[in-house]
Amino acid sequence: MSGDPENPEHPERAAVTALADDFLAGLREWLSIPSIGTDPAHHPDVARSARWLADALRRDGWSDVRVWDTGPALPAVYACRPAADPDAPVVLVYGHHDVQPVDPVEAWAHPPFEPTLVGEELFGRGASDDKGQVAMHLLGVKAHLAATGATHPAVTVKLFVEGEEESGSPHLTRLLDEHRDDLAADLVVFTDTPLYARDAPTVCTGQRGVYGAEVVFTGGASDVHSGRAGGGVPNPATAIARLVAALHDDRGRVRLRDFYTDVVEPTEAERADYAALPFDEGGWLADSGGARATAGEEGWSTLERVWVRPTAEVNGIHGGYTGPGLKTIVPASASVKLSFRLVPDQRPERVAEALREFVADHTPPGLRAEVIPCGDGAPPYAVDVAHPAVGAVRDAVETAFDRPVRFSRTGGSGPAALLHGALGVPVVYLGATLPDDRIHAPDERVVVPLLLRGAEAAAHLWRTLPERLS
Amino acid sequence: MSGDPENPEHPERAAVTALADDFLAGLREWLSIPSIGTDPAHHPDVARSARWLADALRRDGWSDVRVWDTGPALPAVYACRPAADPDAPVVLVYGHHDVQPVDPVEAWAHPPFEPTLVGEELFGRGASDDKGQVAMHLLGVKAHLAATGATHPAVTVKLFVEGEEESGSPHLTRLLDEHRDDLAADLVVFTDTPLYARDAPTVCTGQRGVYGAEVVFTGGASDVHSGRAGGGVPNPATAIARLVAALHDDRGRVRLRDFYTDVVEPTEAERADYAALPFDEGGWLADSGGARATAGEEGWSTLERVWVRPTAEVNGIHGGYTGPGLKTIVPASASVKLSFRLVPDQRPERVAEALREFVADHTPPGLRAEVIPCGDGAPPYAVDVAHPAVGAVRDAVETAFDRPVRFSRTGGSGPAALLHGALGVPVVYLGATLPDDRIHAPDERVVVPLLLRGAEAAAHLWRTLPERLS
Repeated sequence: MSGDPENPEHPERAAVTALADDFLAGLREWLSIPSIGTDPAHHPDVARSARWLADALRRDGWSDVRVWDTGPALPAVYACRPAADPDAPVVLVYGHHDVQPVDPVEAWAHPPFEPTLVGEELFGRGASDDKGQVAMHLLGVKAHLAATGATHPAVTVKLFVEGEEESGSPHLTRLLDEHRDDLAADLVVFTDTPLYARDAPTVCTGQRGVYGAEVVFTGGASDVHSGRAGGGVPNPATAIARLVAALHDDRGRVRLRDFYTDVVEPTEAERADYAALPFDEGGWLADSGGARATAGEEGWSTLERVWVRPTAEVNGIHGGYTGPGLKTIVPASASVKLSFRLVPDQRPERVAEALREFVADHTPPGLRAEVIPCGDGAPPYAVDVAHPAVGAVRDAVETAFDRPVRFSRTGGSGPAALLHGALGVPVVYLGATLPDDRIHAPDERVVVPLLLRGAEAAAHLWRTLPERLS
Repeated sequence: MSGDPENPEHPERAAVTALADDFLAGLREWLSIPSIGTDPAHHPDVARSARWLADALRRDGWSDVRVWDTGPALPAVYACRPAADPDAPVVLVYGHHDVQPVDPVEAWAHPPFEPTLVGEELFGRGASDDKGQVAMHLLGVKAHLAATGATHPAVTVKLFVEGEEESGSPHLTRLLDEHRDDLAADLVVFTDTPLYARDAPTVCTGQRGVYGAEVVFTGGASDVHSGRAGGGVPNPATAIARLVAALHDDRGRVRLRDFYTDVVEPTEAERADYAALPFDEGGWLADSGGARATAGEEGWSTLERVWVRPTAEVNGIHGGYTGPGLKTIVPASASVKLSFRLVPDQRPERVAEALREFVADHTPPGLRAEVIPCGDGAPPYAVDVAHPAVGAVRDAVETAFDRPVRFSRTGGSGPAALLHGALGVPVVYLGATLPDDRIHAPDERVVVPLLLRGAEAAAHLWRTLPERLS
C-alpha cells in the first residue's frame, strides 16, 4: 500500500493514527463478548454486546444513545451525533453486532472470543463481520472531529446496529417501522461488505437478493420394490431431477417465466470496472470450494455471474435410499431445496409465483407437488452509480487508500434493500474488510491497517458529503 | 375356483387331499425356525432349518440327502429321488430356505415364527417365500408316487435348496461349480415365483435381471456459499439432476448406448396372453406404493413395462443440505443410486460399460465423476415358451387349477439365469403363491388351497414330463 501513515498527507490520517491504539483496545474488548444471535444460550451475550456498544458511544460523546431491547428483536443499538447545522445531510450508518456461531471450535487456531493480534491481523469472531466495520465507523467519526477540530460532525450521523443480521434480520422491517422518525435520513451507509482485494480496494454498489423454496414430489405412501413396479410408475426422484435439469437452458439462463424481465443490466462503465479488476481464476476457484473450472451463464465473466446476474442453485437434493449398497426401490418421494440469487429489479414474490408455475408445469401425472417457501426471501439492491453520494464514497476511499478505486458488487444478500425500501433513500457501501477474512468460518480475522484506512475514508466522507449533496 | 377336491377327477388331487394335514403340520414346524440368513445371529437357525429339511426328506424316502455346510455359503440342502428308468429325464428343483428379516416385528398381527392358520391363510415368515413353495414340491413328489402307486418317480427329481437367496445368492455360482455332477439335470424347475392372481393362475416364463451403481459428482473439497460463488461454479447436484434427466428420452426409453440392442421382445402370443390377463389399474397402483397414475415406456402396457421391458430407476439421490429451512450453498458433491432392470438378452457387464460412458459424456467441466458398481448385478432370464417342458408345466397347472392358464413373467430378479448358465439347461417356473402374499413385509402369508393345487400340478408334471420331453 502506498502512502506513509507516519507522514500523513491528510489530517484525517494523522487523527486515525493517533487514535489507533485506543481503537484496537476497544474493539478487542467488544470482540470478547460472544454475541451469537442464532444461539438462545448466547442471547444474554447479545444484550451485553449491545450495552458495551452503547457505553462506548456515550464515552465518545454521542447523544441520544439507546438500546432497543423490548423485543421481539434481539437488542439493537441506536445513537445520533448531530451536525451543528440543522440543515446538514443526515446519514444513517447500518451495521450489526451479532456474530456467527463458532463450530467447529476445535478448528480455530486462535480462540474465537480471545481476540489475538498477529502482525497486522486481528483474529476473533466478528473481527470482520461486522463489529470490526462498526468500530471502524466509530473511529471514522472521531477522526473526522479531530481532523476538523469541530465539536460536531459536518453531517448528522445516526448509527443503527442490529442484533439479528446473522439470523436473517427477521424483525428488521418491524424495527424500521417502529423507529421511523429516529432512523429518518438522507442516505444510508452500509458497513457490512468487503473491498474486492487488498491490492484492489473497491466501492461496493449492490448486493444480490435471494429467494429459496423446497419442492417435494410425492408418489405413493411408501417406497415400492423396483422389481415389482419399476418402469410402470412415476419415479419422484427422476421427476425432481428433470425439474432441476429444466431450470436452465443450454446457455445457462434460468427458464422461469419472465425471470429476466425485471433485470437491470450493469452499465458499460460498471462492466468496464469489473473487467479491469485483477482476477486470478485459480485463486478464485480455490477460495470457492475448490471446483476445477468456472461455469455459468454465457456471455458474462465470472465476476459478473456472481455479482450482477441472477441464478438458480440446488442447495440440496434428497430422495429414496442413500445408505450403503443398493436398495432397489422406487422412492415414495423426493425433494430439492432451490435458491435463486436475484438482481435489481427482480422481486422475490414474482420469482416465487413463477416457481410455483414452473413446478406445476413439470409435475408428471401421478405425482403430487408441494412448494414450501423458505421465508419471503430478500430483495436485491444496487445504488445508482451516478448518485453524488456514490462519487463521494469513491473519492473518499481513493484518498484514504492512495490509489484509484473501482466499483464492485457482492454476490451475497443482505438487508440493504429493506433499508432502502423503509427509509426511501439511497444506500451506499463503505466497508474495508476482505473476501478472504473467513467470515462465518474458523479463524475469522480482519486486517487492521485496512480498517484504519476505512476509518480514514469515512472521515473524508463526512467532511466532503455536505458539498457533494448540495 | 372350480373343481371339487372332495370329488377328485384325478388321482393326484385325491393324493394331495389325503396328504394335506401332514403337509401342513410339517410346514408349520419348518416355519417356526427363524432362518434369517442376512442376520448372523440367526445363522444357527439357518443350519437348523437345513437339518429339518434334510430330516424331512429322509423321512419321505429321498436318497442321497446332504447338507452342504462346509462354508462359506450358509447351509444348503441337496437330495435326489431317482426314477426307476436310468434314462428318464432328470429334473432339478431349486428353492431356498433362508427367510427375510421381520422388522418391524410390532407390525405383525401374527407372530412371524409362530405359524398361524386363519381360514385358508397360513401366516408366518417364509410361508410364501420360499419354504411354502419348497414344501409344496415335496408334497408334489409324494402325491405323484401315491397317485401312480410307484416306488420311484417317473423322472429323477433332484432338490437343491440354498440358504442365501435373501442375501443375493453370493456363493451360488461356487456351489453350482463345486457340485456340478450332483446338480446335473435336463431341466431346472424354479419354485420362487408367484401366480399372477388367484383367479388368474399363470405360468411364469422369466425374470428381469438387474444392474446397480452409484454415480458421484464432486466439485471442490467443501460446500461453498452460494452468495459468493453461486452462478460461477458448476453445481454437482444440478449436474446429477441433468444426468438423471438425460437417462430417458421423451418416449421413456433409456438412452444408454446400445441399451436395446440385445433386447429380445416377447412373442405376439406372449403379448396376447399378457393383454388377456385381468388388470385392475387402481388395485395395481395401490399395491405398488400408492402412486396416482402409471407411467413408463411408450407403446407397452403396464404389465409389459414391468415384466418384459428394461428400465432405469433412481433408487436414491442425495446432495447438499437436506435439514430444515434453507442453507444457501453450492454443494461439494452429489450422488445418485441407479438400478437398471434388464431383460433377455441384456448383460449386466455391457450395461455397466455403457453407464460408465454415459457418465463420462455427462460430466460437466470442473466436476470429477465416480461410478461405483453395487456388485456384478444379475442377468435376466426367460425360457423359450415353445420348449416342450414349458408346455408340460402349463398343461399341469391347467389340470390342477381346472382352468385355462396364461403365461406371465415377474419384474424382479433371481438366480434363474445363474442356474441356466451353470447347468446349461432350460429353467421353468412352477410356483403357486400370490403377488399380495406380503413377502418381505409383516404378516407374510400363503393361501393353503393354492399350495395344494401347486403340489397337484407338480405331480401332474412328473407324470407327464417323460413323454413331453421324449
